[in-house]
Amino acid sequence: MFMKKKPLILVTNDDGINAPGIRILIKLMSEIGDVFVVAPNKPRSGCSQSITFNSIINCREINNKTFNLKEYECSGTPADCVKLAINELMTKKPDLCVSGINHGSNSSINVLYSGTMSAAIEAGVQGIPSIGFSLLNHSWDVDFNPIIPFVMRIVKNSILNKISPKTILNVNFPSSKKINGIKICKQAKAHWNEKFIKRKSPTGEKYYWLSGDFQIDENSKDSDEWALANGYISIVPTHFDYTNYGLINKLKKWDL
Amino acid sequence: MFMKKKPLILVTNDDGINAPGIRILIKLMSEIGDVFVVAPNKPRSGCSQSITFNSIINCREINNKTFNLKEYECSGTPADCVKLAINELMTKKPDLCVSGINHGSNSSINVLYSGTMSAAIEAGVQGIPSIGFSLLNHSWDVDFNPIIPFVMRIVKNSILNKISPKTILNVNFPSSKKINGIKICKQAKAHWNEKFIKRKSPTGEKYYWLSGDFQIDENSKDSDEWALANGYISIVPTHFDYTNYGLINKLKKWDL
Repeated sequence: MFMKKKPLILVTNDDGINAPGIRILIKLMSEIGDVFVVAPNKPRSGCSQSITFNSIINCREINNKTFNLKEYECSGTPADCVKLAINELMTKKPDLCVSGINHGSNSSINVLYSGTMSAAIEAGVQGIPSIGFSLLNHSWDVDFNPIIPFVMRIVKNSILNKISPKTILNVNFPSSKKINGIKICKQAKAHWNEKFIKRKSPTGEKYYWLSGDFQIDENSKDSDEWALANGYISIVPTHFDYTNYGLINKLKKWDL
Repeated sequence: MFMKKKPLILVTNDDGINAPGIRILIKLMSEIGDVFVVAPNKPRSGCSQSITFNSIINCREINNKTFNLKEYECSGTPADCVKLAINELMTKKPDLCVSGINHGSNSSINVLYSGTMSAAIEAGVQGIPSIGFSLLNHSWDVDFNPIIPFVMRIVKNSILNKISPKTILNVNFPSSKKINGIKICKQAKAHWNEKFIKRKSPTGEKYYWLSGDFQIDENSKDSDEWALANGYISIVPTHFDYTNYGLINKLKKWDL
């Protein structure tokens, strides 16, 4: 054992409480600690760090007979789930929050839109260390077996190394069967070439549907995209100070 | 004039296209450049950088007879509005995107949840310099007159100083009548003491409502909260590389 007592682990996601990714994560975390689940009652992909403050949030306990743990489904966003869990539902603060396993990438610029990572960031805001896990495969039938040992290793190492409060890890797994190892990375520069599909509704009204191609703008070996393209798991330590410190002195020279 | 030709300015917000804050901003920007408006058709406060990709987006041109400009109301989020404007609706890229004027603060940690700032950040992602404006007063009847000269000065200065692509400014105005000037700041460390109000619906079902008190965790004179508390306008240069570079070497020592 790597802790004197079992760690208390909060589990959430953005694909919704019935997604295969979170079901696997609940199972794995139950082997490591005491697990408390609060997750959205429907898919919330792309909801970023949305919070619900102009309306109500419903939250309902559901029975998890398989693992004998506390599990709640919540009408709110992933960030709402984390706030509600830590400040209302849990009787003590969790030692760790894990989010995912997301069905799809949250590498590079995708972290901005990610509900999975927003839950991890929200945990960081609340002073809880956290890890967001994402697999670069959107299929709900994807085989999680190749990544299971790595999920376990990363979580166990985080606890062993006494991962500090506000430490947030963005972990992405390549979808290849063979994994070459783990790289600590920075967020790659990248962008989406956005394309909007224009169509008409049955009543003739024009509508748009967001689509696009992902474009990587750097080939730096210390970036998450390089790691993933080369069969490595990427871990990007993430924070929530959005200050662009490099611009402060430049802006001070403006005649404001 | 500070540019050879009139700048093209994209205007958006998160309080919705009918909010007084954006109506003022449209009027002000019309005095500076050619204005193109794409804004949500309903309030979207707290929606962070949410995007709509699992469903359609409606967008409808509305007549702005007062200022003779292009104006669209959109069913999407602020980030959707910016993506749609730049990649679909506008025939050329804007020189600047301005978002707001938000009714309420987006200083410190509030930037994480802000729809106003998400629009500015999205413009940055698209390579367009941008400014998010927020006034520390939630009332829709608030008097914007004291801050108007400062909005104009900040926008004119941004153009005059050839604000570079991907530069994103988070501008917050104190609600005091007397303003002491402008400070270039960093995002203050702060958090919300979250409280959930628990009530029962007419049919007896428990629900939660997110509430809380804002707590500032530092009194540093270079922070936005210090500036605002002392009657200054805060400008925080903002970016979207969420890598916590300070942790990379520490994590490399873990036995992963």
